Amino acid sequence: MPKNKLVENITDMDQDFAQWYTDVVRKAELAEYSETGGCIIFKPYGYAIWELIQQYLDGDLKGTGHENVYMPLLIPENLLQMEKDHIDGFAPEVAWVTHGGSEELTERFCIRPTSEVLFCSHYSNVVQSWRDLPKLYNQWGNVMRWEKTTRPFLRTREFLWQEGHTAHATAEESLAEALQILDIYCNMVEKMLAIPVIKGQKTEREKFAGALATYTFETMMHDGKALQSGTTHDFGDKFAKAFDIKYLDKENKLQYVHQSSWGVSTRLIGAIIMVHGDNNGLVLPPGIAPTQVIVIPVASHKPGVTEKAEELRARLGKIARTKIDLSDKSPGWKFAEHEMKGVPIRLEIGPKDIENGQCVIARRDTGEKIAVSLEGDALEVAIAETLKAIHDNLFTKAQERLKEKTFAVHSLQELKTTLDTTPGFIKAMWCGADECEVKVKDQATATSRCIPFDQEKVGEVCFVCGKPADTMVVWGRAY
Amino acid sequence: MPKNKLVENITDMDQDFAQWYTDVVRKAELAEYSETGGCIIFKPYGYAIWELIQQYLDGDLKGTGHENVYMPLLIPENLLQMEKDHIDGFAPEVAWVTHGGSEELTERFCIRPTSEVLFCSHYSNVVQSWRDLPKLYNQWGNVMRWEKTTRPFLRTREFLWQEGHTAHATAEESLAEALQILDIYCNMVEKMLAIPVIKGQKTEREKFAGALATYTFETMMHDGKALQSGTTHDFGDKFAKAFDIKYLDKENKLQYVHQSSWGVSTRLIGAIIMVHGDNNGLVLPPGIAPTQVIVIPVASHKPGVTEKAEELRARLGKIARTKIDLSDKSPGWKFAEHEMKGVPIRLEIGPKDIENGQCVIARRDTGEKIAVSLEGDALEVAIAETLKAIHDNLFTKAQERLKEKTFAVHSLQELKTTLDTTPGFIKAMWCGADECEVKVKDQATATSRCIPFDQEKVGEVCFVCGKPADTMVVWGRAY
Repeated sequence: MPKNKLVENITDMDQDFAQWYTDVVRKAELAEYSETGGCIIFKPYGYAIWELIQQYLDGDLKGTGHENVYMPLLIPENLLQMEKDHIDGFAPEVAWVTHGGSEELTERFCIRPTSEVLFCSHYSNVVQSWRDLPKLYNQWGNVMRWEKTTRPFLRTREFLWQEGHTAHATAEESLAEALQILDIYCNMVEKMLAIPVIKGQKTEREKFAGALATYTFETMMHDGKALQSGTTHDFGDKFAKAFDIKYLDKENKLQYVHQSSWGVSTRLIGAIIMVHGDNNGLVLPPGIAPTQVIVIPVASHKPGVTEKAEELRARLGKIARTKIDLSDKSPGWKFAEHEMKGVPIRLEIGPKDIENGQCVIARRDTGEKIAVSLEGDALEVAIAETLKAIHDNLFTKAQERLKEKTFAVHSLQELKTTLDTTPGFIKAMWCGADECEVKVKDQATATSRCIPFDQEKVGEVCFVCGKPADTMVVWGRAY
Repeated sequence: MPKNKLVENITDMDQDFAQWYTDVVRKAELAEYSETGGCIIFKPYGYAIWELIQQYLDGDLKGTGHENVYMPLLIPENLLQMEKDHIDGFAPEVAWVTHGGSEELTERFCIRPTSEVLFCSHYSNVVQSWRDLPKLYNQWGNVMRWEKTTRPFLRTREFLWQEGHTAHATAEESLAEALQILDIYCNMVEKMLAIPVIKGQKTEREKFAGALATYTFETMMHDGKALQSGTTHDFGDKFAKAFDIKYLDKENKLQYVHQSSWGVSTRLIGAIIMVHGDNNGLVLPPGIAPTQVIVIPVASHKPGVTEKAEELRARLGKIARTKIDLSDKSPGWKFAEHEMKGVPIRLEIGPKDIENGQCVIARRDTGEKIAVSLEGDALEVAIAETLKAIHDNLFTKAQERLKEKTFAVHSLQELKTTLDTTPGFIKAMWCGADECEVKVKDQATATSRCIPFDQEKVGEVCFVCGKPADTMVVWGRAY
């Protein structure tokens, strides 16, 4: 009996990817539906992944001089309306608070969909001189967007994220900040989540409501679809003018500040699932695996086995996030359960192993099993090497998929046919006209994902209108 | 010119304690008012204190087997109504979401004032067998209560907290959990915040809406008023019955679970301010001081001074949270500024000091200054000892105040007179009748703070009605 029958089967990912995704979310115990429509419950395992992402990113942000703050959850309606593009972008999807206790409020509040206006309003009060700049604020919290259709982690009415909001003296600085943070995000996503990224700029049509420019990193899921995983925005002085945020420069002249904002969210957990998962469930990159090594005693009723297993757990606990499974389930059941949860390394220890002074370690990503001596530091070395090998393998596999599923096309029809038959990313030259971009959306239900920083000339003319084109854009269908 | 004139003066704490508090909150840059009525902006310095509290407490909670989860922000109205006492307690003070985008919702949602009903609803879905117990869940997040009058940290419409919600097999276990967490809280408050506590149980009148019993730790502020700083609740099976949370026990019989909940909030920051602060501003206990040592170069234009100061910052950075102030303000101004912010130790280094191979360290709590040699590890030893001495001194001072301002009384009139003339805590015997408690509230605007675990017989009869009484209660006026 194949061991994955021991836990409830999940849908085959190549038959129904959407159902496979939902199965993994629930059976790996990442999240559960709640009684609040469109909002999920982050279960301990799912939340622990988020905590590891937070911990790493928070370190990087503090290391580059950013400070955490906390702004109110609610935004007064008049404040939301101060920047026109911004309110136009967000008003249709905010939740409105109209009553406090039994009293109707004189002014409505929306639950923050993002906090630009709160930070701007604060900056307009506290920024006076060049000495007050830059302000490098970040906030960890929840936001709400009243989405019609939702999917766990990918699109939920409430989600958790960090939102950075900075104010600088010059246009150069706010741009540099938006680009610096994009690098910090990409480094985290590649180093911790083992997900390769395409960095670039959003088109005018796809940029953030109110931004001068939006920068993005796009990732490709197992099914070839794109997931916008995080964005950074350069606002220039647009919000500063709307909110009157001025400072006295060194020459004693009043200047508008220049601002940026940026965020990544619990959506990243969806990316991890859809990039690395397989038909046995979740596959976690070691960097954000709440349990990196699961110790499973085999024939644990035999004398000394449980003790040895506990000894190994304690020993490995010093170098990796290690747990032991001492439940009364069968070893096979446990194997399948921890595979479902994507634990990178399983360590098996039984009477025979003890006799031979060894244990067995099995890789979640490849299924490969090796015997490792318990003498000296052989085990520590093997665990460290295997964790690194798993990370590298996951990253390489994802990178190869990204390469294999990226196609250059030269006409809108070719784009449509390619996406319909071999879903993936499309590279195509674009003239820069909004109407061409709209045609792609209307006729092929695909969107521009980004104008990659790494440009590559895949043709001479716009694949939509045939006019001369210098810009290569990555297109795709996205979550 | 006394150095505290260099920064804007704060109100004298003995003349107007409320104004002094507000001044310190703002001038120490802990928080700022926001455009969202009744909600504050946590500035970097205030939020950093909260992060240190979180870090310590989160470690203790995880160390005792608790897991973090995240439940939705919004509670459907019907769900809130399932436990009668609970809804009666919270309905008058919740914020209601009635619209999503431009559409009116068919069912209203309230913003969680606390999340019992969400956890209960989840537990009723996921708890089936004794194997699923205990569930030891905790959540860090924001909650909202639509208060009429608010004060930064002490009472705001939105606040940050952790709320633990657990489910157990037996009544003994849920009680033990409520008591264990109370110990964890008190340990944190005494060890990290240097605030002595009185542990005890709330009376029926003061207990949490829906609880069987509420346990509390009460702290005394500089002005003798009480601050309820954290509570833990034993629900028994009250919520389990309302939400039908049952499990199959080892004998295959259906049983209700027994539950607890517990929380501490950003209110603790208010306690820190009001227990330790003085007329020069904030005084932070080293455990939660974002900056434990501030290095200030004196005569920094002289050659080698800034370099030496930076060297010391790097050196001390290994053993304490150390920062350096290299701004272009005068040393005196800097001294006053970091005093205002309550930094435990100021380290001064100037040309004379360098010549003598020493530096000067000044204690925020006592003002005491000592010269310390830069040779060997004398400085490291002095810093470590001084941080400990500051903690101990703050704790001892608060403990002495608690003692000095606690009075035994034997009549309601005596209670009233005492509180009017020498504000503090009142110990008095109570017969247990609710009507006596109500009289205290109505006639002396004081409330029962707790029935201390450490009982002490301060009389034979109830100080209100004169009937025989066995229970000593601590009374006071509270924030």
